[in-house]
Amino acid sequence: MISESFSVNEKGHLAIGGADALQLAAEYGTPLYVMDEDAIRRTCQSYRASIERFYEGRGLVLYASKAFCCKEIYRLVASEGLGADVVSGGELYTALQAGFPVEKIYFHGNNKTVDELCYAAENGVGAIVVDNLTELQCLNGLLERMDKHQNILLRIKPGVDAHTHSFIRTGQIDSKFGFALETGEAMAAVRAAAALPRLRLKGLHCHIGSQIFDTEPFCHAARIMIRFMGDIRRETGLSLGVLNLGGGFGIRYVGEDDPAPYESYMQQVSAAVHESCKEQEFPIPEILIEPGRSIVGSAGATLYTVGALKEIPGVRTYLSVDGGMTDNPRYALYGSKYEALVCARAGEKPTKTVTIAGKCCESGDLLAEGALIQECAPGDILAVLATGAYNYSMASNYNRIPRPPVVFVRGGQPRLAVRRESYADLVRNDL
Amino acid sequence: MISESFSVNEKGHLAIGGADALQLAAEYGTPLYVMDEDAIRRTCQSYRASIERFYEGRGLVLYASKAFCCKEIYRLVASEGLGADVVSGGELYTALQAGFPVEKIYFHGNNKTVDELCYAAENGVGAIVVDNLTELQCLNGLLERMDKHQNILLRIKPGVDAHTHSFIRTGQIDSKFGFALETGEAMAAVRAAAALPRLRLKGLHCHIGSQIFDTEPFCHAARIMIRFMGDIRRETGLSLGVLNLGGGFGIRYVGEDDPAPYESYMQQVSAAVHESCKEQEFPIPEILIEPGRSIVGSAGATLYTVGALKEIPGVRTYLSVDGGMTDNPRYALYGSKYEALVCARAGEKPTKTVTIAGKCCESGDLLAEGALIQECAPGDILAVLATGAYNYSMASNYNRIPRPPVVFVRGGQPRLAVRRESYADLVRNDL
Repeated sequence: MISESFSVNEKGHLAIGGADALQLAAEYGTPLYVMDEDAIRRTCQSYRASIERFYEGRGLVLYASKAFCCKEIYRLVASEGLGADVVSGGELYTALQAGFPVEKIYFHGNNKTVDELCYAAENGVGAIVVDNLTELQCLNGLLERMDKHQNILLRIKPGVDAHTHSFIRTGQIDSKFGFALETGEAMAAVRAAAALPRLRLKGLHCHIGSQIFDTEPFCHAARIMIRFMGDIRRETGLSLGVLNLGGGFGIRYVGEDDPAPYESYMQQVSAAVHESCKEQEFPIPEILIEPGRSIVGSAGATLYTVGALKEIPGVRTYLSVDGGMTDNPRYALYGSKYEALVCARAGEKPTKTVTIAGKCCESGDLLAEGALIQECAPGDILAVLATGAYNYSMASNYNRIPRPPVVFVRGGQPRLAVRRESYADLVRNDL
Repeated sequence: MISESFSVNEKGHLAIGGADALQLAAEYGTPLYVMDEDAIRRTCQSYRASIERFYEGRGLVLYASKAFCCKEIYRLVASEGLGADVVSGGELYTALQAGFPVEKIYFHGNNKTVDELCYAAENGVGAIVVDNLTELQCLNGLLERMDKHQNILLRIKPGVDAHTHSFIRTGQIDSKFGFALETGEAMAAVRAAAALPRLRLKGLHCHIGSQIFDTEPFCHAARIMIRFMGDIRRETGLSLGVLNLGGGFGIRYVGEDDPAPYESYMQQVSAAVHESCKEQEFPIPEILIEPGRSIVGSAGATLYTVGALKEIPGVRTYLSVDGGMTDNPRYALYGSKYEALVCARAGEKPTKTVTIAGKCCESGDLLAEGALIQECAPGDILAVLATGAYNYSMASNYNRIPRPPVVFVRGGQPRLAVRRESYADLVRNDL
């Protein structure tokens, strides 16, 4: 099994967070997203403990809500003492609806709209992470009119290339995000921010990419950022107190994936932080990190009902399920790999190689190719594992397929967190 | 300009179906989908005229609603005398809500659920296009319990490879869709269908792929299908009366795209149909075709507000807009190309090469690379052209970004067809 959330119960069925997958499918229908709440909480706790241990508690773990966003996940991470990063007015709205402490919300985005900036400032988010000069000027002007001040961080491109899929690589200079260090743009932005009366420049942010397995790029980015904080102090006299190191920690999607344990990642990065601060004679800043995928990804699974099996001799076997790219577009977008199993025979050896196809009218609507699963027949329940991140959040209504509900499992007990979309929902805005 | 829907008005602004793009943006906000209704109607009329001309009216044009689905488009194509193909219960629901004549609805899909089959049969759709043996048996059983009969077609893979993007190529044997001819599977399916008492086998369907520019693959598929209809009559005595040739006609997205005029496509395919029928001594069947993209694609544009411009010396210039992969995932999914222009300077020569980036927190959130546009600044309105198909229908709420509204323009007058999603809509199903 690819994570601690999945086990085989005494009936030989897949259990997710201790709940029998077949019972979940029977109770809530398929397709169905299931999240192991206990695992999510444990990961939150382990990140918090690392902040205690490696930074003497001077830091905050921000849940990167774009990985999986709904009211219930905000309640959950808030109850574990985490903050959150949001990337849009819609995420901020959802967090606020869930009663999330607004001072622990950090607002990101390469192109925040004027409405979004106003919305964030009016509500007094912890900080707005400013991406570019246009935004910097615009925000100051808005605050002027609102007669308000706002904490900000600046998003910096540290120039680190983290060797991941080009779609999700963001720390290099060729990126739509942030201010470049090499070109002097970042230093100019610091000076500009410091000079704008409504902005309170608290620190810097960087994010080098997503689904990264190596610890070294993170250490490298931390060193670069602290060196830059030293440069800022030397050149401007400003001593910035906050360093947000972003997220991007990889998870195990399939057996061959080999992420570093987060504890070891936290330890190594903190060593780099401490060492660099010593070198720069710079006080250890407050450290923020932004895990999203690594909090929810491995804790989720999607349950589907198997439809037709289509064996094409000498070619492959297509197994169709009642969902697909509408609830999980990651194979179509990135060729992402997933493991799957037949819930009723989770304990049996997989013997069948199949292409798992969705029900969309599109040939590219596949969830996996060459997936090794147990024997199965139409009507069986299939689980695709590690779908907790970037599945529900990226889901669409392509083909007018309603989005599945989300069930959280705590102590083996399921409860609904997001209801299934109805057909009526689909036409709600149609005139 | 890449289609008849876009012109430059006396102010030098882009006009869509005669409506000033800047006025549309001011009235409805951005991002905004705009559809030129007059152009859509003309295309519908031209397809219908081809059926009259080349098949003496013995046929029906089915709008492939997955390209763009909302209540208003169903009303529009119904008023032009078209039928529709739907690929899910959600599309069928939308069509029925719009008052679409149910007998002109054809229900497709490689993995229709039991609920969907019941829903389609209860409402008496024109035909269910059966994809596989599991479905054939299941449908007959359901009809037995409902004490109903149902017209069906069988989806056949003609084995034609239409040289298009592998995601949207569906006629070859390695496809999740339909019964293969070569293996005898298709003939077995015909016999099975004929033997099932609740099914009324009316004919065959094939679909060779999407965004195809060549006419020859369509002719080739038509010949194969008619030869197969001849084989069926010889081997089983059944004379099938309906041949659905599917869709897949390419449109011009950018200047270099060179689709055959639909009239010429219709003429050449009809010549192949007539010739093959003569060869097989087979009566000309009723011909169905399923254009979707070619009806709505070129008639649509998306309007965005330009945010930050980020010039990275020696690398590229990122121009960020207030939408992106959430309203148009086709670049991220397929690398699809689009043309764009600055609405206020639509008549001016484009001089600026930019990468158009969306506002999602994802590096792959781009709409175009190397796009040549007019000079522009933050706050300008940018139009991306030919977004009428597979944009709104594939849109997501990734990053919790609300989906844009859709405006139809008729005789230069805009009217809202789909309202903008609100933040409240985003959490409607959240508990």
